[in-house]
Amino acid sequence: MDRPRFVIDSAEAEQMAKQSGQTVLQLLPALVKSAQALARPPISKYHVGAVGFGSSGRIFFGVNLEFPGVPLNNSVHAEQFLITNLSINAEPLLKFLAVSAAPCGHCRQFLQELRAAADVNILITASKNENESKTNDNCNDKDLQFTPLSHFLPHRFGPDDLLEKDVPLLLEPHRNGLSLCSDACNGKLNGYTDDDELKYAALEAANTSHAPYSGCPSGVALVDVEGKIYKGSYMESAAYNPSLPPAQAALVAYVASGGGGGYERIVAAVLVEKADAVTKQEPTAKLLLQCISPKCEFKVFHCKKNSLNCEYQE
Amino acid sequence: MDRPRFVIDSAEAEQMAKQSGQTVLQLLPALVKSAQALARPPISKYHVGAVGFGSSGRIFFGVNLEFPGVPLNNSVHAEQFLITNLSINAEPLLKFLAVSAAPCGHCRQFLQELRAAADVNILITASKNENESKTNDNCNDKDLQFTPLSHFLPHRFGPDDLLEKDVPLLLEPHRNGLSLCSDACNGKLNGYTDDDELKYAALEAANTSHAPYSGCPSGVALVDVEGKIYKGSYMESAAYNPSLPPAQAALVAYVASGGGGGYERIVAAVLVEKADAVTKQEPTAKLLLQCISPKCEFKVFHCKKNSLNCEYQE
Ligand SMILES: [Zn+2]
Ligand SMILES: [Zn+2]
Repeated sequence: MDRPRFVIDSAEAEQMAKQSGQTVLQLLPALVKSAQALARPPISKYHVGAVGFGSSGRIFFGVNLEFPGVPLNNSVHAEQFLITNLSINAEPLLKFLAVSAAPCGHCRQFLQELRAAADVNILITASKNENESKTNDNCNDKDLQFTPLSHFLPHRFGPDDLLEKDVPLLLEPHRNGLSLCSDACNGKLNGYTDDDELKYAALEAANTSHAPYSGCPSGVALVDVEGKIYKGSYMESAAYNPSLPPAQAALVAYVASGGGGGYERIVAAVLVEKADAVTKQEPTAKLLLQCISPKCEFKVFHCKKNSLNCEYQE
Repeated sequence: MDRPRFVIDSAEAEQMAKQSGQTVLQLLPALVKSAQALARPPISKYHVGAVGFGSSGRIFFGVNLEFPGVPLNNSVHAEQFLITNLSINAEPLLKFLAVSAAPCGHCRQFLQELRAAADVNILITASKNENESKTNDNCNDKDLQFTPLSHFLPHRFGPDDLLEKDVPLLLEPHRNGLSLCSDACNGKLNGYTDDDELKYAALEAANTSHAPYSGCPSGVALVDVEGKIYKGSYMESAAYNPSLPPAQAALVAYVASGGGGGYERIVAAVLVEKADAVTKQEPTAKLLLQCISPKCEFKVFHCKKNSLNCEYQE
């Protein structure tokens, strides 16, 4: 079975390293090319691959996704895909990152949402500009040129410019305490149907969404022709524009675990967000999903923060 | 008359400097606060002001714009506003920039579209992180801590990763050679009406749009209740997501020269783009404009590249 794989568990990573006579960290740049092969950039044809090493010892892949028919700011960069992949797999910390091209400013900014952002060590495998990339603050691991993110975005603008210290950051547990408005109002659940499953998957995604800046968490759940469900949580950036919308996060889940099929295999989607959201995802999420999968059915359910006298019961 | 001003001509800039016993460069950080006062950030309430000095000797203001009701990636950052302002006023080069907060990664990336990007000198007026911002490569002008952009985005990803050397960059003259499909097909212009004026303004904006990555230039023209027209050209980034959509560029023109009124004064808008654009601006431009000015009439006209046997005649 040759399904593309986006996560390598720690035992297998160690075995792969052993077999090739390398350290696990040396594996990261060696795997970048196979990550690149999984990218889906129909507009630029520029394949970007990112390979990350988490604190659990697992290796994660990230690739860029581009969507013809909608504005370019709908694109998902490989580094964003990677972070979403870590989030899906409950990996608490990204420690090392090898990437095929210099991370763009948008990604350097997105990565600032991580708790220990400054210490994420980055290695660029492209040979271009190699001369000018010699710096003194490299983290050496058998001649590997990993350089901390703080070097790539000095004098950063980040979460600490806008948030209190106790607010959870990206990859940290989020419990947004949201319930569906219809449930909350009825005080009970409807009869359980397939539709409900998708709806509650989207609600779950909204409940773990990172949206401390707008206060408007949201989530998308997709279902493919086989009935498999993929969840994506909206992830906000302190700099606003680099935020990853919930539909894109769900598409990352689809690409990372969907077996490599085309988007037209996605047959239905549910978005859950607040009715009065200051950052309404509905029209743009619908637009993107119907652009890449014209027959995809799209529904929206509104949620609200649980209050004491109207709490969501599972 | 207390209209907000977003451009100060060179004679006036010199006079202002003389009167205050400063150099013109020292004026830039001194003007940041008055730029901040012009920002329109109803979501974050975080006012960002950018003050730029161009090669003509003029001073330009930039402020951040946020739009409730649409996703955060519709926001315009102060640095993007500033570059759009330079573009509107045919300023060929940004030399110095003072800004109220550390430029985010998205903006550092967007600025890479400028020809001499590495040499744009930046000064952050916020006092936060002052200790860690001491570097050795400062460009000193009477103790002003201007630091080149290359320091803020080392190992950049930029236009030279994707474009041939002779392709015009942002702020350089663009002549996209587009004409409206309806004109091209009829071989003649319709009778000239107000509607035509808006349509040809949008076409002009599309013809100077910077879209070398997608090959899909576009432009928006807005008209306010007084009949005044504002043009905005789509400006693309090599990193895709930081691209500034044409509706946002036109809104920058409106804010910069519209007298400070609310967006509800915008009564009609025209978008010109290619019919088969791989980055279709239509639905999202319409969504944004009708969100901030519900009564705004929105029309789209398609354009195509002039060919020899079907050329647009002015
Ligand atoms: Zn990127
Ligand atoms: Zn910015």
